[in-house]
Amino acid sequence: MKDIQNQKDTREIDIQKVGIKRLELPLIIQRKNNSDQIVCARARVSVSLPGHYKGTHMSRFVEVLNDWTAKNLLGIDIKGCLKDIIRTLEAQSGELEFKFKYFIEKKSPVTGLAAPMSYECSFRGELDGDDYKFILGTAVPVTTLCPCSKEISENGAHNQRAYVKVNVSYDEHVWLEDLIELIESCASCPVYPLLKREDEKYVTERAWENPKFVEDVLRDAVLKLRAHPLIQEFEVECEAFESIHNHSAWAYQAESR
Amino acid sequence: MKDIQNQKDTREIDIQKVGIKRLELPLIIQRKNNSDQIVCARARVSVSLPGHYKGTHMSRFVEVLNDWTAKNLLGIDIKGCLKDIIRTLEAQSGELEFKFKYFIEKKSPVTGLAAPMSYECSFRGELDGDDYKFILGTAVPVTTLCPCSKEISENGAHNQRAYVKVNVSYDEHVWLEDLIELIESCASCPVYPLLKREDEKYVTERAWENPKFVEDVLRDAVLKLRAHPLIQEFEVECEAFESIHNHSAWAYQAESR
Amino acid sequence: MKDIQNQKDTREIDIQKVGIKRLELPLIIQRKNNSDQIVCARARVSVSLPGHYKGTHMSRFVEVLNDWTAKNLLGIDIKGCLKDIIRTLEAQSGELEFKFKYFIEKKSPVTGLAAPMSYECSFRGELDGDDYKFILGTAVPVTTLCPCSKEISENGAHNQRAYVKVNVSYDEHVWLEDLIELIESCASCPVYPLLKREDEKYVTERAWENPKFVEDVLRDAVLKLRAHPLIQEFEVECEAFESIHNHSAWAYQAESR
Amino acid sequence: MKDIQNQKDTREIDIQKVGIKRLELPLIIQRKNNSDQIVCARARVSVSLPGHYKGTHMSRFVEVLNDWTAKNLLGIDIKGCLKDIIRTLEAQSGELEFKFKYFIEKKSPVTGLAAPMSYECSFRGELDGDDYKFILGTAVPVTTLCPCSKEISENGAHNQRAYVKVNVSYDEHVWLEDLIELIESCASCPVYPLLKREDEKYVTERAWENPKFVEDVLRDAVLKLRAHPLIQEFEVECEAFESIHNHSAWAYQAESR
Repeated sequence: MKDIQNQKDTREIDIQKVGIKRLELPLIIQRKNNSDQIVCARARVSVSLPGHYKGTHMSRFVEVLNDWTAKNLLGIDIKGCLKDIIRTLEAQSGELEFKFKYFIEKKSPVTGLAAPMSYECSFRGELDGDDYKFILGTAVPVTTLCPCSKEISENGAHNQRAYVKVNVSYDEHVWLEDLIELIESCASCPVYPLLKREDEKYVTERAWENPKFVEDVLRDAVLKLRAHPLIQEFEVECEAFESIHNHSAWAYQAESR
Repeated sequence: MKDIQNQKDTREIDIQKVGIKRLELPLIIQRKNNSDQIVCARARVSVSLPGHYKGTHMSRFVEVLNDWTAKNLLGIDIKGCLKDIIRTLEAQSGELEFKFKYFIEKKSPVTGLAAPMSYECSFRGELDGDDYKFILGTAVPVTTLCPCSKEISENGAHNQRAYVKVNVSYDEHVWLEDLIELIESCASCPVYPLLKREDEKYVTERAWENPKFVEDVLRDAVLKLRAHPLIQEFEVECEAFESIHNHSAWAYQAESR
Repeated sequence: MKDIQNQKDTREIDIQKVGIKRLELPLIIQRKNNSDQIVCARARVSVSLPGHYKGTHMSRFVEVLNDWTAKNLLGIDIKGCLKDIIRTLEAQSGELEFKFKYFIEKKSPVTGLAAPMSYECSFRGELDGDDYKFILGTAVPVTTLCPCSKEISENGAHNQRAYVKVNVSYDEHVWLEDLIELIESCASCPVYPLLKREDEKYVTERAWENPKFVEDVLRDAVLKLRAHPLIQEFEVECEAFESIHNHSAWAYQAESR
Repeated sequence: MKDIQNQKDTREIDIQKVGIKRLELPLIIQRKNNSDQIVCARARVSVSLPGHYKGTHMSRFVEVLNDWTAKNLLGIDIKGCLKDIIRTLEAQSGELEFKFKYFIEKKSPVTGLAAPMSYECSFRGELDGDDYKFILGTAVPVTTLCPCSKEISENGAHNQRAYVKVNVSYDEHVWLEDLIELIESCASCPVYPLLKREDEKYVTERAWENPKFVEDVLRDAVLKLRAHPLIQEFEVECEAFESIHNHSAWAYQAESR
């Protein structure tokens, strides 16, 4: 059979990224406590393609990813898998990204009852020759309570669920568990999967004592991300689904050392 | 050219609904104040198909809908349009549904500043012979403030944005504007597109004075929907995106006279 | 602390369903081959609430679900978990639904290479006194090739990805693996996660030899679902994301014995 | 009442972007043929905030946007509106983005029947001092037919709906209508809202004669975008929702003069 993809292309356009998107596969993730977690990941993977090739060989992306996941080799070695992809596709550069829900057992603040809570997370590797960059991402739900509403009102203060999205790059390793904890400590209060009455009293009062605009959550996160010994580069945003509006308040910051 | 759709089918299965989904088209909606509003609608339209026909003629759905919208005939006459569809497709029964964002100008509660606010709405008609049923739907964002959190906490109370979805059937006409107002009056407080500081004080305090579980919002809505002189049948649900959890509280009720 | 939820409500409205939505938790599902699969499930769970109670106790839903999943007791015993929920909440009736992506290893049709493929699936139980109903659901991606386009064109025929959604009720057990296979056999061709060139030739030609409207896929599914010895009730729909339009073709059928 | 936002902040962190997201409002867009179109837009708007201010004044964003839309001043003057926002918020820089569905009347290729077709579009302005950048975006649905599948199969070739997303920057003006036409000309075939049998024969055969990988669509788009006299910078990607897989093929390129 003819290999159409291998035919010569005359347009002479080097393609920066070509590959596949929305491929779902089970992934074994290494946790901070040395145990594993199986997640349902959505992958996007691509390589560069020189101008003289008509097309890339899409099925090879699936084959390499399948090899790595079937053998449970991945753990957190995105770089190794990406190297294999680039070698197999005979490419100069490539990118590999997984998005998945990750469960962390979380204890209620007073009663100490534990239940799993899911966080939207992502691993992303970019490799160009020997240049490698890894980006760890997560979106952390939290509570924000409005300082202005608290100040001007006789009683109460509007509060709401907000999501803090963060992407970080580093040389050594940062665990999702630690990154999520760092972010949760910047909000009016963390959110929990399971709260009994004593816990509900606690989180209500803690948010009340700790009013924060999206600007405040962002700035506190920026301070902690700047101070982190391993993080080289970060991007952080806070979006609060305002309880008094049908739109969101939003703040964004990106910095690198 | 052969008309494959008109060929005889031997499986002898009458199909209940066949048609098209996710067709987007501009629609002119009649407003309560007699003016018009152009909305971007997503349509689902279908007819029944007797067992001896292989297929329906999908392009005719688009033609009839296009005729009606191009001539601005629709207004609120879903039944007329649906009759035309059923006649054109030579069918026994049919359904026509539009989903769209509808803007209502809303005044801030204290300063009186007006701004448009969008509501997810739907029109749905079902016609079987002479039997016609129309269902008007909307999803109304509101604030709910937790009675339990208020009661047990020293200060504050968790509150959040909730959505009350309602579908109603009636003989005569009910306006979207009135249905939305009915629903908003059942919450701890309505939400607004534009709030100055005086308004924010007002909505914070009003929610505080008016704590409601999703059960309370639902029950108050049920009382008002039962008492409405024109509504024959309704379905209502309240989902609160809890500010202290990453999941929702939810309540649901369906009733008919 | 006061138990606000236990207070008397004077509106005298029995609530049909009250509970929580969008709770994510890891679930261990029993597979047809007797092994397990851990999935990331999104739960909706609710109970009925008598008119004299002000509110239900939301945290108990999370506690019971957490108990069952932490002890890996679920398997496929939705009924047992639902009974426990109803007992704990002192309710008359209840519903429990999980939605999740389920992976099945699928072999390429010619080269026989295996790779996991994900299917959107759902388990849903409804219990009212002793009356129990279980609904198994899935959305199966397939290829459809248009019979009309093939007939009238010199060469080629438009084809596209379609999704067949099916919900079935039964007394004894039906496996997801079998239900998915039943549905795939009704399309122009199944879709695969991994196809080498020989496989791509095969699926292209198989779809060509097997042209189907959404009406055809639906009717073939209806025939097989009617003929299934265990299925008592079903709902099936086929939506084709037409490659020549920006909207879908759609057909729907619901039947019970 | 105290102005909490105006209080001094001691963290000394200049915030890059703070504002609101997911605000929906009706917008009057100027069309190429000099008429107008009312669209339902979703806005994200933000400004920079100096380190010594605690917070921005969120309600002012809504006020300025409301002023501009109520008076129908917008047309395509994103820059004017953004200047007003920056002046009102006393900021150094700002961004304003609208996302909306835009309808273009499209004629069937043989029968010439016209019907509206919707395209996801966006306007985005970035202003920093006197530095202004405008980005026009759209996602264009098209048909792609696989060259490999056509070559290796006895009959037929798999084809599918693909979306070509493009963002362009320019000094003078580029119309959405022209950008969409440029993109549609790069695919195996455009897609249409309304196709009679003669049209269906035409589009089937045209796609057959014109097989394209996502790489081909991308390269043809790159050639035309490079050759465009007004476009200074572009980003283009093609994602094909493969009819033989449950994942997408994808290609991406970004270039500037």
